[in-house]
Amino acid sequence: MRYAVLGGGKRVRPLLAFAAGEAAAKEPVLADPERLEIAACAVECIHAYSLVHDDLPCMDNDVLRRGKPTCHVEFDEATALLAGDSLQALAFQLLAEHRLCDEPQAQLEMMRILAAACGSRGMAGGQAIDLASVGQPLTLAELEHMHIHKTGALIRASVALGARCANALSPEQLARLDHYANCVGLAYQVVDDVLDQESSTATLGKTAGKDAASHKPTYVSVIGLARAKALAGELREQAQTALSSLGAGARRLSDLADFIVLRKF
Amino acid sequence: MRYAVLGGGKRVRPLLAFAAGEAAAKEPVLADPERLEIAACAVECIHAYSLVHDDLPCMDNDVLRRGKPTCHVEFDEATALLAGDSLQALAFQLLAEHRLCDEPQAQLEMMRILAAACGSRGMAGGQAIDLASVGQPLTLAELEHMHIHKTGALIRASVALGARCANALSPEQLARLDHYANCVGLAYQVVDDVLDQESSTATLGKTAGKDAASHKPTYVSVIGLARAKALAGELREQAQTALSSLGAGARRLSDLADFIVLRKF
Repeated sequence: MRYAVLGGGKRVRPLLAFAAGEAAAKEPVLADPERLEIAACAVECIHAYSLVHDDLPCMDNDVLRRGKPTCHVEFDEATALLAGDSLQALAFQLLAEHRLCDEPQAQLEMMRILAAACGSRGMAGGQAIDLASVGQPLTLAELEHMHIHKTGALIRASVALGARCANALSPEQLARLDHYANCVGLAYQVVDDVLDQESSTATLGKTAGKDAASHKPTYVSVIGLARAKALAGELREQAQTALSSLGAGARRLSDLADFIVLRKF
Repeated sequence: MRYAVLGGGKRVRPLLAFAAGEAAAKEPVLADPERLEIAACAVECIHAYSLVHDDLPCMDNDVLRRGKPTCHVEFDEATALLAGDSLQALAFQLLAEHRLCDEPQAQLEMMRILAAACGSRGMAGGQAIDLASVGQPLTLAELEHMHIHKTGALIRASVALGARCANALSPEQLARLDHYANCVGLAYQVVDDVLDQESSTATLGKTAGKDAASHKPTYVSVIGLARAKALAGELREQAQTALSSLGAGARRLSDLADFIVLRKF
């Protein structure tokens, strides 16, 4: 579990949770950094568990992650399976045993959001669609549907949990944040596909060109490199627009949208 | 997910949750059957997920469960992995999105109990100890330590969640119920080991003699058949004694302790 979750990574989901907490904070309702830290840890535990399971031989069968052997290569498959299972449980334990917001009922809602984002109507369902899509000619809409679940659901949950630690936004403002999260979630995947095509294994810290080699549809294979890059730029614009009414507190969310689209790894 | 969770089984954990709710109920604080049903579904989702993952080739590599092909045989390994992952998420989603007790804070505590019971200090940790114990000469204390985690943790959580749906017991009464759960949890495993030795695959609906064949320590291998049977009887006695102060409402818990020890499958 330590190897999987403490072994580096960009920490995009925790950063989004912290940034959303900052965007949602209003004097005198500041998002407590200790609360945000718990939410950030929970989403990163879920992300780490999903990578460990995703890398297993029966899934993507990958041997390299963050420049190091994947968990089942470093240990063994059974240990990787159980470490992933335990990281999922740990995420919910963290959210249940620490105070995250003033109202326990709102905290239950945060737990519901994360659980729904992880399950068959969220991340795990997206991975199932991903597996079923190998060798299939997907439309852009079908590809988007897959990624909204596979990557997007947890990114949306990261923003939603961070914002709810502050508990100062109106439903309408929360909806705008959610739209922002949707856009950066999709942009993240579009850029991943572009980098997978254009970058080296050394730069990425994971096996480059893997999706193409395993006949998985990607944004590059479905709409081409140029349109994929343009789409990432459009999603970045949309994300920034969604933040416009949230004021100066949303600066870090804005920076993160730029980072997600402009990153080189 | 449906195949794994709706495919039969003894439903011991849901029965324990319902029975604990009945034991904890006191006029005017009756345990609402609809609340108990959610708690019962959650613990069974966790149990079903653990079986699906436990049967995978990298774990116990079993092909038969409840008289039917295991999930990865019926579908494939990746589907089984994701179905298990999703069932774990579904358990927490159920507990978060339905009202289980009057106080949301107490409901968060129920979620904490289940998450802790599932993770590295609970069920998944017990499975890791189990895997590490193959071919090892364990003492009775070490064997007990493994099963307290592997099987016992979720059985204790089932009783704890059921009792908390009624929310009418003192901490001391809850501690007695927990002692009951500890005893039946261990007894369950002792009887499993006895049946694995004495029964046929047809009767059990799962591969008999599997543990011995894979050099896993069992109560029968560590203390012998006669002492294992005597231990099951002692644990049944202890479980019944723990219930003695709880009155007539504990009748079903008492029946379940008898069933767990006297069952033939």
